[in-house]
Amino acid sequence: MEKGKYTLGIDFGTNSVRALIVDITTGEEVGTFVHEYARGKDGIIEKPGDPNFARQHPIEYIEGLSASVKGAIQAASEHPAVGNVAENIIGIGIDTTGSTPIPVDRAGQPLSFSENFKDNPNAMAWLWKDHTSFAEAAQFTEQAKSEAPDYTKYCGGTYSSEWFFSKILHLSRVAPEVFSAAASFVEHCDFMPGLLVGQTDPVKIVRGRCSAGHKAMFNAAWGGLPPQEFFSHVDRNLDGIISKLYTETYTADKKVGGLCREWAEKLGLREGIAVAAGTFDAHAGAVGAGIREGTLVKIMGTSTCDMMIVPAASLNIAIKGICGQVDGSIVPGYIGLEAGQSAVGDIYAWYRDDVRWPLENILPKTSFGQDLTAEKVAALIKESKDTVYDVLSEKGERVRPGQSGLLALDWHNGNRTILVDPNLSGLIVGLNLQTRPEEVFRALIEATAFGARVIMDRISEYGIAINDIITCGGLAEKNPYLMQIYADVTGRPIKVSRSAQTCALGVAMFGAVAAGHYAKVEEAQKEMGGLKDIVYQPNADNRAIYDRLFNLYRRLHDAFGTKDFSENHFSVMKELLEIKRQTTAA
Amino acid sequence: MEKGKYTLGIDFGTNSVRALIVDITTGEEVGTFVHEYARGKDGIIEKPGDPNFARQHPIEYIEGLSASVKGAIQAASEHPAVGNVAENIIGIGIDTTGSTPIPVDRAGQPLSFSENFKDNPNAMAWLWKDHTSFAEAAQFTEQAKSEAPDYTKYCGGTYSSEWFFSKILHLSRVAPEVFSAAASFVEHCDFMPGLLVGQTDPVKIVRGRCSAGHKAMFNAAWGGLPPQEFFSHVDRNLDGIISKLYTETYTADKKVGGLCREWAEKLGLREGIAVAAGTFDAHAGAVGAGIREGTLVKIMGTSTCDMMIVPAASLNIAIKGICGQVDGSIVPGYIGLEAGQSAVGDIYAWYRDDVRWPLENILPKTSFGQDLTAEKVAALIKESKDTVYDVLSEKGERVRPGQSGLLALDWHNGNRTILVDPNLSGLIVGLNLQTRPEEVFRALIEATAFGARVIMDRISEYGIAINDIITCGGLAEKNPYLMQIYADVTGRPIKVSRSAQTCALGVAMFGAVAAGHYAKVEEAQKEMGGLKDIVYQPNADNRAIYDRLFNLYRRLHDAFGTKDFSENHFSVMKELLEIKRQTTAA
Repeated sequence: MEKGKYTLGIDFGTNSVRALIVDITTGEEVGTFVHEYARGKDGIIEKPGDPNFARQHPIEYIEGLSASVKGAIQAASEHPAVGNVAENIIGIGIDTTGSTPIPVDRAGQPLSFSENFKDNPNAMAWLWKDHTSFAEAAQFTEQAKSEAPDYTKYCGGTYSSEWFFSKILHLSRVAPEVFSAAASFVEHCDFMPGLLVGQTDPVKIVRGRCSAGHKAMFNAAWGGLPPQEFFSHVDRNLDGIISKLYTETYTADKKVGGLCREWAEKLGLREGIAVAAGTFDAHAGAVGAGIREGTLVKIMGTSTCDMMIVPAASLNIAIKGICGQVDGSIVPGYIGLEAGQSAVGDIYAWYRDDVRWPLENILPKTSFGQDLTAEKVAALIKESKDTVYDVLSEKGERVRPGQSGLLALDWHNGNRTILVDPNLSGLIVGLNLQTRPEEVFRALIEATAFGARVIMDRISEYGIAINDIITCGGLAEKNPYLMQIYADVTGRPIKVSRSAQTCALGVAMFGAVAAGHYAKVEEAQKEMGGLKDIVYQPNADNRAIYDRLFNLYRRLHDAFGTKDFSENHFSVMKELLEIKRQTTAA
Repeated sequence: MEKGKYTLGIDFGTNSVRALIVDITTGEEVGTFVHEYARGKDGIIEKPGDPNFARQHPIEYIEGLSASVKGAIQAASEHPAVGNVAENIIGIGIDTTGSTPIPVDRAGQPLSFSENFKDNPNAMAWLWKDHTSFAEAAQFTEQAKSEAPDYTKYCGGTYSSEWFFSKILHLSRVAPEVFSAAASFVEHCDFMPGLLVGQTDPVKIVRGRCSAGHKAMFNAAWGGLPPQEFFSHVDRNLDGIISKLYTETYTADKKVGGLCREWAEKLGLREGIAVAAGTFDAHAGAVGAGIREGTLVKIMGTSTCDMMIVPAASLNIAIKGICGQVDGSIVPGYIGLEAGQSAVGDIYAWYRDDVRWPLENILPKTSFGQDLTAEKVAALIKESKDTVYDVLSEKGERVRPGQSGLLALDWHNGNRTILVDPNLSGLIVGLNLQTRPEEVFRALIEATAFGARVIMDRISEYGIAINDIITCGGLAEKNPYLMQIYADVTGRPIKVSRSAQTCALGVAMFGAVAAGHYAKVEEAQKEMGGLKDIVYQPNADNRAIYDRLFNLYRRLHDAFGTKDFSENHFSVMKELLEIKRQTTAA
């Protein structure tokens, strides 16, 4: 075994990029650095009046790559036990958000780097959360339903406005000059390794299995991407699109190539070190957290990703309602399952912000607050952010399960799994004249845990055992109150990943495999990963009450979220949203 | 016509008593005084650990009678245009809360005035909101359902724990010594006139039609009270109860007798002036507000009472789900209909208190608030009471109907009409990550207005036209925002009673009829009553959107509140309450 060797994991998030240098034998994280994007709002190019619009300038990725890697090397150099870290980095792994496609020119450069398109948001990266392509998404779904096989069957049965081809088709309509100038379209996660290995032929840029399988309908069942006719049936704009794309994909443990001289010099790393194929953040995070057969990894943040791996032989049908199942998208040799909840931390933050509302809107109108300047109010709002969580949690911990009489549906941002329906909304029932904020907050946490349980139940229905849960992400790190509720609701021991940077750690593991240090990523996980000491064990009494509450949650879930119960009932949330849209537009 | 003559209206509320002196020809309110009760919590004798328990010492009524009347006379004497007011008062009308029965001895005195029972709460007045008799109420309902006719048919089909016989039966079980010492049981509203006319025979105390009809199953359809066998079937404790009660009742325009010498001296009034029969506050309030055929009077406070009058000939069946329909209970010669919502202002106050929660629980933990003493926090909470309403209303007015996407059920304290079910709870649907407090508050107001509309629809189904609405009570006086929403939701012009004291004014009108000044209370209403200038007219555009939202409200109402839709669905709120009870008891 090599000692004192490192790999570099680079994790491109929505607003920033993090580089992490990890000791490949101990997993010690010896240096890290976060670079915040500089343009637009927190790095996102918005369009006034269009909440669906979200672009990112690819120059952020170039700047962020240099700044974060150099910053991490600098940080590692201050570590007492680390020698010349840059010399001893043997591999690089990269993850990004997705689907975040970038139109590129014949030299593999983003079109937004050219003089013609330099300030054109359509030529930039179409950030994952850009939803401008909803009409196109519906067309892909409709076309897929009219053909056999249904090309969306392994990605939840509904093609999303967030995904690769929806965005490309929308581009062809709103900016045909950009579309026709594009020699190819490359996911952000594939663009970065291509850049580092110096690939200038856009069609030869190596494409990752994860992005292709989850967002572009790439599947071995039909020999890769859907055939050209499928796309031409959706829109003649897409004639010839397949020739600009790819027929092969790499799992993230595979080496794309060696670091090119130009980037080796820019970053101060050795030329030729292994660069692994790119993957998505959640999938890398699952690996970094310690995913293995029988373990559900929950990456908990504003939303959640719920990830599992299943031996390919044991699953030959598509699981209904999950976001995707793709061979090799997480751990090579396994089918990667991706499910998720469209809002979790976002729901808590929404409630926290409503709780802080009076500090901004009421307090300054009282005699006590009348001398509050706008600056002081802003400072108070900022300062009270964590206090609100702390007090709600402290008081909420004293409320026993069932005692508030409250039950909520966690659909404030729609439902990703298992209903795959954005046209839903949050609900709370059981309110009375004594209901207090800490009870509402607890009910919201319980609702997200019930939502998590629905996902687990769906996976279990297909004969896949879930023995325990590993959580990671900001929420998992800081909230024993929340974690215990999750353990009690799901009835599973909940463990917490040791690393706070599981995405960057996951790709650092892939870098170590791509460099040949480990034969398989499972070996890298064993040496480089780990868990915190704490395990949240389910409490049997609480579990019994939550079983009863979950039964009621399921009843509301099915009544408002499916047509199984009644078309009449199902339509309540839809009609409210329709009225909201009409009255807001009026 | 006599000029410069007055009547006295005395309104006994839950926590205080108000006397009002009114000019019988102009309706001018020349003097008023409020006396707060002195014992227990705001006049209510509570029992630690038993939220159902609520008694009141009848001595409060004696003290309050003297203090309020003397106070009103004193206030009137300061009025520039009023001469010797006491000399010119020609009649007295009285209303009280109810059902508030008082056990009395052979001399018609409350048992709690005797040495034997002087500190015994069971010998006091059983305040309307005492719910200790829930088991007995269920027995009366069950017995009524097994007989023909159903003696509860004109009081909503369910006998309440708040009502006369439930309380008497409970008394017989928990305090048999008090029960057997009682020569009769007298409603507070009947006790007061009896006292003023010097009636010492407990069985001869005149009983009002209103209390008898609404709370004691007294109805001409079966010749008065239900027969003795009915009560004996419920419990042998009630053998002989009928002989302690009454066979005749008076409408509130009838003179019970002349003011006795003792009380004339105590109050400084002329001996022999007319004392009208007693009635309940809501019914008196409807008269004071200007109730007439085709006009719904809404008395809006913490809860609401919705009152109408219908010519007796036009209604020969019981309206399903309303609280009561009693010939002469409001205006003699008409059937008085009483319906209501169990929480309205209480729901707004609940939300206001939750909005103030952070001022108490978060602010003191910030650097800005760390020097806040407990006294300052209490002052801040008190001071911000109205500010919260003001800000929520001001911001909420800018939200157009339908625009928030929210819809609520106003069942935070159960549903009185039309479901007659306390085992329900509040619900809100349509929440998203942008939902703000002013939108929630608006949705709560809309929900109470939808609840009002359900009551109106039920009455209309029986062929009773509702042309307009007169509101009175604190909420109606102060909230144009609320009133406009009610007009838009109900599609009716909403008027506001001129007087802020409609209950006391209503009984002052009855006093004028009992004194012979007017032949009918309608004449007294015409001369003594009136409306404010403002009328809230429904806005057609808003009304159209509210029609759509009301359709959805009705769907949720029926799904959660009735078995029509599904037993499975109906049970969600019930089971949550059951779990709440079990886990709270655990």
